[in-house]
Formats: sequence, structure tokens, C-alpha cells
Amino acid sequence: MNSLHRQRLERLRQALIEAHLSQMVICDPLSIWYLTGTMVEPGERLYALYVSTEGKLCMIANRLFQVEDADLPVVWITDSDDGVAILAQQVDAKADLGIDKKWPARFLLPLMDLNPGVRYRDASFCVDQLRLIKDEQELEKMRIASAINDRCMEAAAAYIKEGMTERQCAAYIDSLYQEAGCEGPSFTTIVSFGPHAADPHHAPDDTPLKEGDCIVIDMGCVKDRYCSDMTRTFFCKKADETYAAIHDLVREANEKAESIIRPGVPLCEIDRVAREHIASRGYGPFFTHRLGHMIGLEDHDPGDVSSASKDVAREGMVFSIEPGVYLPGKFGVRVEDLVIVTADGCEILNHVDKHWKIIG
Amino acid sequence: MNSLHRQRLERLRQALIEAHLSQMVICDPLSIWYLTGTMVEPGERLYALYVSTEGKLCMIANRLFQVEDADLPVVWITDSDDGVAILAQQVDAKADLGIDKKWPARFLLPLMDLNPGVRYRDASFCVDQLRLIKDEQELEKMRIASAINDRCMEAAAAYIKEGMTERQCAAYIDSLYQEAGCEGPSFTTIVSFGPHAADPHHAPDDTPLKEGDCIVIDMGCVKDRYCSDMTRTFFCKKADETYAAIHDLVREANEKAESIIRPGVPLCEIDRVAREHIASRGYGPFFTHRLGHMIGLEDHDPGDVSSASKDVAREGMVFSIEPGVYLPGKFGVRVEDLVIVTADGCEILNHVDKHWKIIG
Repeated sequence: MNSLHRQRLERLRQALIEAHLSQMVICDPLSIWYLTGTMVEPGERLYALYVSTEGKLCMIANRLFQVEDADLPVVWITDSDDGVAILAQQVDAKADLGIDKKWPARFLLPLMDLNPGVRYRDASFCVDQLRLIKDEQELEKMRIASAINDRCMEAAAAYIKEGMTERQCAAYIDSLYQEAGCEGPSFTTIVSFGPHAADPHHAPDDTPLKEGDCIVIDMGCVKDRYCSDMTRTFFCKKADETYAAIHDLVREANEKAESIIRPGVPLCEIDRVAREHIASRGYGPFFTHRLGHMIGLEDHDPGDVSSASKDVAREGMVFSIEPGVYLPGKFGVRVEDLVIVTADGCEILNHVDKHWKIIG
Repeated sequence: MNSLHRQRLERLRQALIEAHLSQMVICDPLSIWYLTGTMVEPGERLYALYVSTEGKLCMIANRLFQVEDADLPVVWITDSDDGVAILAQQVDAKADLGIDKKWPARFLLPLMDLNPGVRYRDASFCVDQLRLIKDEQELEKMRIASAINDRCMEAAAAYIKEGMTERQCAAYIDSLYQEAGCEGPSFTTIVSFGPHAADPHHAPDDTPLKEGDCIVIDMGCVKDRYCSDMTRTFFCKKADETYAAIHDLVREANEKAESIIRPGVPLCEIDRVAREHIASRGYGPFFTHRLGHMIGLEDHDPGDVSSASKDVAREGMVFSIEPGVYLPGKFGVRVEDLVIVTADGCEILNHVDKHWKIIG
């Protein structure tokens, strides 16, 4: 652990105190990396960081994980140990215990059986509120991940031709990330042709690209642990007039939303601006999802930009702005950028032209 | 849902009755697919199947998931709903509730707050015991996934040359899976050179292959939802005599273990046979993990072949046999096959030669 990690752990302890908690178990490997600098992929095995406000700190780790260099106390377990029982011994059985929102029932339920007097509370917001505001070093990594994503989107648009399948195009994008030295895509790359684009989460299949199809590409990479995420929508060889007009509408909604971002603006207000613009032409019912989501170590970090958001924009937040319109069985369009909230506005991380464009 | 799914649901209800449960919430998308034929990738969103022994069956799904074709009752939720509260209304608040072992605390804890009178029990074993025994259709898919894996291992061994990096070799293997029409690797492809091989879970990095290095390749693909998984260990250009002898020892342990597999044999006995062979030459302390794990829809399905296993081999089980020896800072070797337990023995799914071999 370096001074950055010690600082983050101290801020976590402060957040726990404010939440009236004296202890917490963290299991998300990315949060543990964020707090300690140690990265493990535990698979189905138990892996946890125990933090108390009184200064106790220990990692519970399987010997298979090879984290000998972790610069903090480690309670080692093996495959033949009862890991939860060993963890239970580390916990103050008389105080409320903060739990990681991701901790699976297979660990939580036996811990509850072992320490029945404890009140268990989802305390992930204590870590999430730290991860929500990126420092300059993190922002620089996010800029780099998005710059790679811009280059790969341009290359993908130049590559895609009539007759290619969605799967081929998605594989090409993934190979570009590989060549760029990324850890991989930050989510399953989405390439949707024609009616498939009406499903915002369509998985690429063997459908070939046809003249007149819209082409939704929603792609992101992980570089040095930080994620990018962008969507552009193209047309193959020619664009239907109505669909092109809907594309303009969605792009304008994206731009209007981005134009009002600055510290203090409620996130629900940003959503409202985009949603009202789309509704103004009668397409409100076809914009079926939130406007955006936080992003950082995960493609979907906690927190979103939606009508239900209660937070306001704060300097150092990074989120997506991704309005879309989906006409079932026919057509879909989405235009998505990532933005950093700055002291007096926002920095848009994606620079690929947002206007509709003919490719193929 | 077809008759297969109705049959599986009926067997799940029987298992719940035997476990003295009248209801269960399943959240693992693969288990829900296994039971209903509907596949969704819910990300961080709530997705659950509620099953009661009295015949009630419903899916709780977000409208974004596009599962209109699910042939069972669906309770739809949106991003602005309190999904857990809606789920809570479906549940019998007076009876014990079986919980999926993977259900994260962010859903389980609020459900417990809403229905405090219920006893919550990890009931995943009721589904897992069904998934443990594969039917002929599943076995055929597993044979195909392993046949692809055999071909890709041979191609990888022919491709790898001195000077290439671990990351390059892993990327090549992943591209072979792509060309073979797989959904992807079944886990992060492991390519470990020289001392890196001493970490059974080493992540490929930019280390180049040098003459004399051992090369551990642990790889698997997902094809038609079913997983393969195999390890072979090679040497680059020449083999150190001691290390080659350890390779022979590990291969023999693999073969001895496979030779005793038949219905009724305790899984811990299979582990013991391999472990004793390795211990007979003094390398026992360096075989640091269980002998094998179940496999199917997941690379690591529940259940393992270890000294702690309480189960016996049963016809239709599929698991790995993967003894290894790891000399920290120096060398590692692992030899892994998948096997199907048959009526009178086992069928070994991998056919790549297991003897050590010079490549590069």
C-alpha cells in the first residue's frame, strides 16, 4: 500500500463513521484494489477485506491467490478451510457489520448463522462514494481508455461492409482492443444491424449487414483497469429519411444534455433535458432506459443519470450520456459519450463525429 | 419452455420438498436458462425466477431484458421500480425461502428487511444437484466443446515460438476460439512461461518465451453454452532433466486418477490416488490445489474432486483431473483432462498427447 491507499482507507473509515458503522467487509476485487493496490480474481473462492474504524485492517485470502506482496495483514485460508468461520472470528460480533453489496448469499447467509447477534447492512455506498469522484490520475487513465475507444470506433466504421455479420464486426473490434494493449472490452461489444438495433442490449449474431440497415455500435475497452464506453449509429449505404431524422433528434438530445452539465446540476435534470427533447417529437415512449450511468473501474459504476437520480453533478464524476430511440421490429439509434464533470462544465471524452453517416 | 424444462422444474420442486423448503428464488442466469430456456445477461439489474412447490412459477425481469418470448409468467419491472419490493410481494412471507447462493447482498439484505419473519436458506444445492448430472444432449455439447479445445491446443503448440510473449500466445488461442464459432473462452486463458508457471492462476503478461522455459497452457472455450477446460505443459527447445521427470510424475498422477474413475468411487479417493503418487517422490507439498472441479454451464460448476469431497462419482458427472507441481520462483507443471463418468468407467474428453514435448 502507498500513501494513496492509506488516504483512501482513511476516507473509507470516515464514511463508515458517518454511516454509524464501526466495521465493514468488502469483497469486490476492484474495490479492494482501489483501497489497497492488491488485485486478485477470486472466482468462486472467498476473498474479503475487513476494515474497522478503530484501525483494524486485514485481508482474508486463499493461499492460491499469490498475494504475498500485499502490504497488509493477511489471514490465509485454503480450499479445505471453512473460510466464513475464519472471517467470522475477525469480526466484532457485537457491532453492526457493513456488507459489500456484491457479497453472495453463499458467504453472507453462513456468516449470519455464525454471528446471529449482528445487524448486517449494505454499506457499499461508503466505498462507492469514494470511487465516484475520480482523482487526476484516474481521470488521465479514463481519457486514455476513451482515446483508444475513439480510434477503434473510427477503424470499425471504416472496416464494416455490407454482407459482414454482426459477430464478425464485434470480433474485429475486440481484436483492435487487443492490438491497442487493452485488458479487453469493458462489456460484451454490441453490434446491431437493422431491427436488432431496437434491442438496446442485443448480442451480436450471424445476421449479415444489408443495404439500408442502421448499425448501432456500442463498445468500450478496459485500459490500465479503467473503462471506456461509447455508442455511434451508422447507416449501410443509404439512410431512410424518417430514421435519419430520428438519429438527428437523438444526437440533439445528447448535445442538449451535455450542454447543461456542471457541478450542482441535478442528474435527474440532465436526464429530463434529453428526455423532453425526444418526447417533443413524440418518441418519448421509445426512449426506454436511463440517460446514463457512472463509469470508472467498472463499465457500470454505481449511480446513474436518470429521472430517479437524487445526486447532483460533482467535479470528478464520470458518466455516460446515451439517449436512444428504439422502434420494436424496425430500427434503433443511440448516441453515447462519456463526460467528466469539470469545475465549470464538462469535458467530453469522445470525439468521433456524432452525426449520422453512411458506411459499408 | 419445452418438456425438458418442465421436467427439470419438476425435479427442482422434488429437491425443494426433500430439503423441507416450499419456495426458492433463483438468480443465476445459467440456472434460469437450464430450468426455463430463457437466457438474459442482467448485469447489475435484478433478475430472478421464483419457484414454489405448490406450482407457482414466475420470472421477475426488467423490461430492458427483452424476454417477451419467455413461456412463463413474467412480473415486469423497470429501472425506476423497487424491484426487491415487487419480488417480496411474490414470496410467501410465512415460509422459509430458498436463496440462490449467488444472490448479492444488495438484493438479499433489503428483502430480509421487507420480509423479516422468513428464514432464508442457501438452497442452490437443489439446482446444483440437477446440473451436476448431465443428460446425453448436454454430454454431446461437452464433447464438442472439448474437441474444439483439443484442436486449438494442437494449433497453439504449433504456433508458439521463442520470443513470443505470454499475452500474444493467449490472444492467439482466443482468436482460434473465435474462428471455431465459440462464444468465447470459458475462463481467462492461462499461458505461463518458466517461473510464472509456479503460479497456477498466473495472468499472461508481456514476458517473452526463452529457451528452456516450461510452458503451461490452461485453456477452455464455451460452445453452445457448455465449457471445456484442459492443461498441457511443454518445454521451449530443451527440457531440464529434473523438470521433465516432474512432468512425468504429474502425468502419471493424472493417468492413475483417471484409471480408477467409475460410479461409486469416492471423489476424495480419486484425489488421494493422484496426491499419493506425487507425494511418493517428495513433491506432495508442491501440489497445492484440489485435483479437479465439476464443469458444465460454468467452467467451475459446484462440487470438486478434493480430499474434502463427500460425494461419490456418478454416471453423467463431468469433472477435471488436473494434478500439478509448483516450485515457487522456478517451475510449474499441470496436466489436465476433462472426464465423463460412464456406466463402467470414464470417458476422457481430451486427446492431446499428455507427455512432455519440445516446442518453440
